Amino acid sequence: MAEDEVQRLKRLAAEKAVELVEDGMVLGLGTGSTAALAVDAIGARVAAGLKVVGIPTSEVTAAQSQRLGIPLTDFGHYNAVDLTIDGADAVDLADLTLIKGLGGALLREKIVAAASKRMAVIIDETKLQGTIGSRTPVPVETVRFGWQSTERQLKGLSAKPKLRLGKDGQPFVTDGGNFILDCDFGPITEAAKLHAALKSLTGVVETGLFIGLATDVIIARPGGIEVVRRG
Amino acid sequence: MAEDEVQRLKRLAAEKAVELVEDGMVLGLGTGSTAALAVDAIGARVAAGLKVVGIPTSEVTAAQSQRLGIPLTDFGHYNAVDLTIDGADAVDLADLTLIKGLGGALLREKIVAAASKRMAVIIDETKLQGTIGSRTPVPVETVRFGWQSTERQLKGLSAKPKLRLGKDGQPFVTDGGNFILDCDFGPITEAAKLHAALKSLTGVVETGLFIGLATDVIIARPGGIEVVRRG
Repeated sequence: MAEDEVQRLKRLAAEKAVELVEDGMVLGLGTGSTAALAVDAIGARVAAGLKVVGIPTSEVTAAQSQRLGIPLTDFGHYNAVDLTIDGADAVDLADLTLIKGLGGALLREKIVAAASKRMAVIIDETKLQGTIGSRTPVPVETVRFGWQSTERQLKGLSAKPKLRLGKDGQPFVTDGGNFILDCDFGPITEAAKLHAALKSLTGVVETGLFIGLATDVIIARPGGIEVVRRG
Repeated sequence: MAEDEVQRLKRLAAEKAVELVEDGMVLGLGTGSTAALAVDAIGARVAAGLKVVGIPTSEVTAAQSQRLGIPLTDFGHYNAVDLTIDGADAVDLADLTLIKGLGGALLREKIVAAASKRMAVIIDETKLQGTIGSRTPVPVETVRFGWQSTERQLKGLSAKPKLRLGKDGQPFVTDGGNFILDCDFGPITEAAKLHAALKSLTGVVETGLFIGLATDVIIARPGGIEVVRRG
């Protein structure tokens, strides 16, 4: 499928997701190229009079939102988020488990998702990979201090961790000042158990396994937009 | 007991702990006023010819070590630490569970302790408080982004969290760039379970409950130095 056709379908899916937005909502604003399409669509509705406030999940999304005139807020002002719209790197439709974090914003994305009543995830169909982990590593946000020690602990959990590098060849640093170890586990059959084991390690800040958080997945398919909702 | 007498006893305890140091060791160097006495004692032995390398648990300890001529290293060069010497804010002698972090360095301290074969803890007897938590809150290192959301999750675990402030009245920021929520739980009977519940929260980086890490506790008592070793 041509790249601009993928882009057109993703834009349609983003617009579908943004139909969930209602006047007065507190929104979680995701990060990444797909989430950015949703932020664009929210910006267009705000320009047309929609009243919402957004909590951005990255500095990049904060800047985009400000350009579009979406009022921003934080958890000092609101206890909960009504709806978060974000992308994902891999989705298992069986239970809407996600892998996120290839874009580097998993920590803030997860903090916002965990505080959200509803989380809509926009993907194209290449992100549907059957059993989670089959083709996508799990990003693990790791404290910089002693990261090699944390890496050794991850190897003890049968991960194949790889320190993520930036374009400059230096370790990629997250908005929170941490490193990311991309951990290949192969197909993951017990995601909750694996997440708990990873998160329990000293030095691990958060993992890219999003379990029980997504409520709606909007899939851009060549045949049209498909919506999968969790019961 | 007069303050300078407490100080003299703590110095004796620190010297006792430093007797565990052997030529060729990789040392974890703790943080805080009591740990600083041990770093002083290690510095004196290095000046007298001892060959060791140290991994400091804070910027403050790194600076002190450099002044004393203790060679520093990191986990890029060594897989494990032979011995860590540190202080603690509360100790339960029943199982050597500790509360640490009132000094603000709990994350690096725990990363180093978790990588250590042996951990010697120097305290004065005021730190012996029977059941852990009775008189000392558990410091919980928390991601700055969305900390109020994490605080609400902590309240859901029956904590009474209090954001730690610095001398300037602004939130205290750790070496890792995080906040600390001091959580009063009252007496903690199931420390491992509580730690796991806290650590599993999105936004929690690490807790000040050190379980199964201390191997030796050296207590400065008016009657002399007492050493308690874990089987």
